[in-house]
Amino acid sequence: MDLDAHFEEFAARDWQTAEEGTVRVALVGLGEFARDHVLPAVAGDAGGPTDRTSFCEVTALVSGSPEKAESVADEYGVETVLDYDEFEAGEGVDAFDAVYVAGPNALHLDYARTAADHGKHVLCEKPIEASADRAREMVRACEDAGVTLMVGYRPQVEPATRRLRGLIRDGALGDPVAFHGWFTGHILEQGGPDQWRLDPDLAGGGALMDVGVYPLNAVRFLFGSDPVAAQATTSTPDAEFEGVDEHVAFQLEFPEGETASCTASYRAQDDDRLRVVGTEGQAALNPAFNSEINPTLTLEVGDERVEYTGPYVNEVAEEFDYFAHCVLTDTRPEPDGRDSVADMEAVEAIYESAETGRQVEVGETES
Amino acid sequence: MDLDAHFEEFAARDWQTAEEGTVRVALVGLGEFARDHVLPAVAGDAGGPTDRTSFCEVTALVSGSPEKAESVADEYGVETVLDYDEFEAGEGVDAFDAVYVAGPNALHLDYARTAADHGKHVLCEKPIEASADRAREMVRACEDAGVTLMVGYRPQVEPATRRLRGLIRDGALGDPVAFHGWFTGHILEQGGPDQWRLDPDLAGGGALMDVGVYPLNAVRFLFGSDPVAAQATTSTPDAEFEGVDEHVAFQLEFPEGETASCTASYRAQDDDRLRVVGTEGQAALNPAFNSEINPTLTLEVGDERVEYTGPYVNEVAEEFDYFAHCVLTDTRPEPDGRDSVADMEAVEAIYESAETGRQVEVGETES
Repeated sequence: MDLDAHFEEFAARDWQTAEEGTVRVALVGLGEFARDHVLPAVAGDAGGPTDRTSFCEVTALVSGSPEKAESVADEYGVETVLDYDEFEAGEGVDAFDAVYVAGPNALHLDYARTAADHGKHVLCEKPIEASADRAREMVRACEDAGVTLMVGYRPQVEPATRRLRGLIRDGALGDPVAFHGWFTGHILEQGGPDQWRLDPDLAGGGALMDVGVYPLNAVRFLFGSDPVAAQATTSTPDAEFEGVDEHVAFQLEFPEGETASCTASYRAQDDDRLRVVGTEGQAALNPAFNSEINPTLTLEVGDERVEYTGPYVNEVAEEFDYFAHCVLTDTRPEPDGRDSVADMEAVEAIYESAETGRQVEVGETES
Repeated sequence: MDLDAHFEEFAARDWQTAEEGTVRVALVGLGEFARDHVLPAVAGDAGGPTDRTSFCEVTALVSGSPEKAESVADEYGVETVLDYDEFEAGEGVDAFDAVYVAGPNALHLDYARTAADHGKHVLCEKPIEASADRAREMVRACEDAGVTLMVGYRPQVEPATRRLRGLIRDGALGDPVAFHGWFTGHILEQGGPDQWRLDPDLAGGGALMDVGVYPLNAVRFLFGSDPVAAQATTSTPDAEFEGVDEHVAFQLEFPEGETASCTASYRAQDDDRLRVVGTEGQAALNPAFNSEINPTLTLEVGDERVEYTGPYVNEVAEEFDYFAHCVLTDTRPEPDGRDSVADMEAVEAIYESAETGRQVEVGETES
């Protein structure tokens, strides 16, 4: 197998058919990620063609903090600024075609439902919601309203991850056998002790919900199948993380006996990687999940070894353009609501396994 | 922290105090590993100072195949050749001080007990035996006879693994948080379908017993503690492996909440690596477990990154010299019988978890 052939047109948008059009987006929630990553990529004027969305613009801001909203509106020239009551009441609704929902997981459904009720498409941050039930409600609300629902799993539009999935689909690694993935970091250094991620009601969980869902979603994407059972253990050795899982290790079993071994932590060296071992080869991505760092894809098949770092691609711009493309062409996004419901069913099995100590079938916890 | 300081005298034998002496070894079992790896390192005349043991010589061979034994004896100039009955009867017992026990796991105890009965020290291949009970019996037999018992976990004397343990002990990574390790390969390409490793009675299990014990033993060695609970899943999708686990994924929980996520497979690309993530740093070894390939140790602490490949060291020679050193100085080996009993208790918890689907406390299965 000529592995190099898989690396031609590495960063090409294999999904894009739209050639023109613009989707006007309202940002719902102006947290750190929205301000530091989304706005520069979607509303900024920085850099070359891959640093900026082609099919999106930010035309409205929804925030509970008028000062923050006005300051951001000034900086990026956004004309429509709404508070949450105004957003719910449908004020300024003609100024945007879609919403980007960020903020606490347990509020995503309300914002998405409001958007759907106004006929607006929804790009919702991961994880989709705080429970599988609320995720299903969001899917229903968007399907009933006939609007597009995408969930912000950037890696699914990140070129190296997409090339790796292509390699696996083409059988370059033989049959997948094992996946290892982890995402660790120091969350207190990023958002302090009062952030919603440490509030179990708002977050729905701890390290698993925030960073553990990345390897979970990635292995489902790469294997192209859903886990049938989960085994897990969680721990919270440090008082700062009381109420949520500071650390989780989970193990998933797939239909053909393949397994995924994943770890997430809120208090460890920053690291996020994945590896897939198959019957005839293996591949690794480093970093695998963090945004705006160029991943290196390493591939070993038999004695052949290829290491490839593609051209830099702004993943947030890719994500928003992919979303806009789906809206403009009426295409179902790959990380859609149902994809995220499947994540949440696995998340609930993982938490139930950690609590009961037994292996839990995925979907078994469904209410 | 000056990471480079940890790499000075990388391959130094930090354990060695013996300056002279020779331990005369009888090889019990002349399988592929004994012929292709042990004999050249212990009885051969190849290469420089680290390619050959300093404190060992092979002075006897025990084999069920007289032709094979005679041919090997001729090649390496070994004078004493015994069959198993002669070995048990104590013939030629003055020709050796110690035995190296290889061959099927379920026969290790009998050979080791015979050796101990004759007052001979024992270096036993990993895993120590086919069950924790039989492992305990071996420990008792050797303790009662006052002979040294070491189990052949090469990585414990491999320099990069020892340096990594030193770094972890010194707190270079902060507190350990998570371990990932795996050992996969194509066993049928190495020994065909009739090998004892595929016979559950002789092997005591499949991929876990043969290769999965490496990451298991390594994480106990590196963390310096024993797992308290295990969760596991096994599968045997291919008929060639019927009766043993072709694939195992297991997850161990340690007393402070640290976890280890491990995979082993008999039918996957050759690969063996480990990674430790701590609160302040991380480290990786590649390869981690296979013999006679120089491992690369990668260390990342904060933004500092060091990658080090030490000088080549013949691990089998290291292992035999470490064993001889322990015999000559009456030192307890690190990978001693009790260390291996702890492995076997984890192995039994892993198999019980795979069978019952529940988390099993290590030691809970003890009969």
